[in-house]
Parts: sequence; C-alpha cells; structure tokens
Amino acid sequence: MPTRLYDLAGADPNLRFSPYCWRAKFALAHKGLAVETVPWRFTEKNEIAFSGQERVPVLIDGEKTIPDSWAIACYLDDAYPDRPSLFGGAAARAATRFLNSWADTVLNPGIVRFVLSDIFGKIHPKDRDYFRTSREQRFGMTLEAYAAEREQHLPAFRQSLTPLRTTLMAQPYLAGERPAYADYIVFGGFQWARCISPFALIAPDDPIFAWRERMLDAFEGLGRKAMAA
Amino acid sequence: MPTRLYDLAGADPNLRFSPYCWRAKFALAHKGLAVETVPWRFTEKNEIAFSGQERVPVLIDGEKTIPDSWAIACYLDDAYPDRPSLFGGAAARAATRFLNSWADTVLNPGIVRFVLSDIFGKIHPKDRDYFRTSREQRFGMTLEAYAAEREQHLPAFRQSLTPLRTTLMAQPYLAGERPAYADYIVFGGFQWARCISPFALIAPDDPIFAWRERMLDAFEGLGRKAMAA
Repeated sequence: MPTRLYDLAGADPNLRFSPYCWRAKFALAHKGLAVETVPWRFTEKNEIAFSGQERVPVLIDGEKTIPDSWAIACYLDDAYPDRPSLFGGAAARAATRFLNSWADTVLNPGIVRFVLSDIFGKIHPKDRDYFRTSREQRFGMTLEAYAAEREQHLPAFRQSLTPLRTTLMAQPYLAGERPAYADYIVFGGFQWARCISPFALIAPDDPIFAWRERMLDAFEGLGRKAMAA
Repeated sequence: MPTRLYDLAGADPNLRFSPYCWRAKFALAHKGLAVETVPWRFTEKNEIAFSGQERVPVLIDGEKTIPDSWAIACYLDDAYPDRPSLFGGAAARAATRFLNSWADTVLNPGIVRFVLSDIFGKIHPKDRDYFRTSREQRFGMTLEAYAAEREQHLPAFRQSLTPLRTTLMAQPYLAGERPAYADYIVFGGFQWARCISPFALIAPDDPIFAWRERMLDAFEGLGRKAMAA
C-alpha cells in the first residue's frame, strides 16, 4: 500500500489548505517520498479515529500510523536516515522546536484573523456548523467580529514577524543555506493563507516575500501549483 | 595575554548586567575557556574603538578582536572545535539564529519596560545622560513614562513567552537534553533582569521558572553567584 496522508480539504476536494498538512507534504517531498493524499473534512472524525486523535495530518507509512506534523517530521527523519535530512541532526532538531512552537502559537494564530472569512466560505458545507462553533468558542466572539477590520490589524501582524524577517536578512533560509524542515514549518502558514485567501499578508519589499517566492518554487513548484485563492 | 571580554558594568563595577555579555560569558564557560572581564560603561566608546564599533560584548582572544554576541559564539565554536560545541553543527547553528532573532527583537525589548527604572538607578552617573537620551529617542517617550504602570503590561509580556514555554514543556533545554548556546541566548535576558531589578518577571509555577533555576545552577552557579538586585 502506498504511503498515504490524510489532508484537510475544502468543499472543492482539490483545495488543500491546512498549514500543518503543508508541513507534512513538504517534509515528504524533501525526503523524496511519494505520497497519496486523502482529502478529509473537519467533521470526518470517524475516518481518522484509528489514529487515536481527531486532527490531520495523519500519515500512514506501511504498518505505521503517525499523527501530528512534528511527529511526522521526526518519524520521517528517523525512518529514512539515508535520504536528505529534514533537520540535520539531533541538535538541529532540538533547536528547530522553538521555531515550531513560535509558528504554532504566534504565526498561525496571527494569520487566522486575515483568512477566517475566506476559510468559512470555502470549507465543505457539512463542516460549517462545527467550524463556526469551535472557532467562536476559541476566539470568544463571532467569526464575523473576529475577522472585522482586518486591515487595522495588519501592522501589528507584520511587526510580529520581525524575528522571521531578521533571520532571513542574515541567511537565505531558516535552515541555513538550503531549505529544510525549519522552512516548511513557517511556509506552511503562508501556504495555508495563499490557498484559502487573496489577502496580501506580506508586502512585496519584505525579505519574507522573496523567501516565500523561493519556497513556492521548491520541489518543482509543489506550493505554487496547488489550488489557490 | 589572557582572553578578555569587555563587559557592561554599573556604578558598582561588580554589577554586570548586559544580556548580550551574559550570552558571551556563558559561551566561554561552555567552551571551558578562562576569561578576564573588563568592566566597561556605556559612554566609554573610546575604550572599544579598536573593535570598530561602540557596543559590548567585545572579545579579545590572542590576536583576534570579535564584537557582537552572535559573532563571538560562532567564533568560539569555529576556533575551538575540540571543546564542547555551542551549537552542535552547522544545521543547528542556522536553526538557532531564529531564536537569537526572537530574543533580540521580542524577549529583550519586552523585558526592558520592567527593569528600566532600576537600570537608570544603577548605571554609572556618567552614563545617565547618554542612557536617558538614547533610550528616550528609542521609546519615543520619557523613561518614566515608558516604565510607568509596568504591572499592567505583565500579562502581555508573559503571553509573549508562549513559544519559549511550550518548547520547555517538550524538552528540558532549548538546545535539547543539555544546555547550549540556544539556552544562553534566552537566559541572558533573564539574567540581565535578575542582576538589575527585583521585579518578578516569571511566575514560580511557569515552566520557564524551573528552567531558569537550572540555568542559574549551571557552571557551578555562574549566573546565581553574580551580583544581583
């Protein structure tokens, strides 16, 4: 059986927008592993119940089932040591974890406000009640209130990217001279936004913009070819 | 000539509080290199003019002069490859740079508000005009206005430490199983605060607190033994 990845999809099954699934798809590409993606919707919890949890990405590789993007990256690097390393060793893996935490707790939550109304418009109709209820609970307000006047929040969001910007002014990729998992972590967030929303998160003269362009070109345009808003 | 480090001092020459100098002192300890620190004040620009810039730390090692904490760490790891590595290889060094950028642009600027009035009270009298003028220009307001009602800013500051907290919930040190330069980068900020101010930045039940305690014990209490507020 081929390697499979449960991948969040919109109403259009070709729309794949989860930032965490993008991390996993780039990690698989980096390792040179072919994968068959399985479109999955938020409310299809039963479809992935075998994984012991309710979220994607879930990777099936032979006999192994691995949920969680960080665990998938670690699994791939450990299980395929002869292929290009995603981290570059144990020390780099440990150092990359902070970046993963930053992307999970600062970058992606920062992006959501700008793309929220677009997400709601593009998810499968059967997911809408779940999405609205769960997100309104998380944000403590209606989707519409949370997404309102997003332009006003843009300067603070761009300011929150300062550590990313200064790093990319010092080296071409977050992982150094060549892209690796550190880059896929952060790119996942921007690719999520790009797939689901036409909103311009990054100014064209921002060093992050040029890095994102290079990332879109990686792996023969894996990111650029994806269905986007 | 012994290895020397120009180290920011207060009115009391034993008070050494620069977060960037603390990074360098921990890096030297990690490499097992003895160092003679030279107390230096903000306005003694002439004393370090030979380094080609106006800030500390400045390391003198044999014929070499190295300013800037990041450059010092890279220099030490390259010049002393047979001693314990500060990064754990090129990939880890590249991955650690994001953490360095975060500490420089989020952590340390976040701390300053809470310790600013204490800094002003403890620097050398000859530094006060320079310090007031340069910082008031940076903050766009008086020192007193910037430091006012610091308790109100504490929840947002602690929230800004989320990536640090979640990383330290997943692994004992930022560098992994054992402390290394990733830890010294961040510890420098907390040690700066500890030396200059009695203000409680971190709650005792925060995982960051326990990590900071372990860091204070490292290298036979290098951080804990330092003159503190």
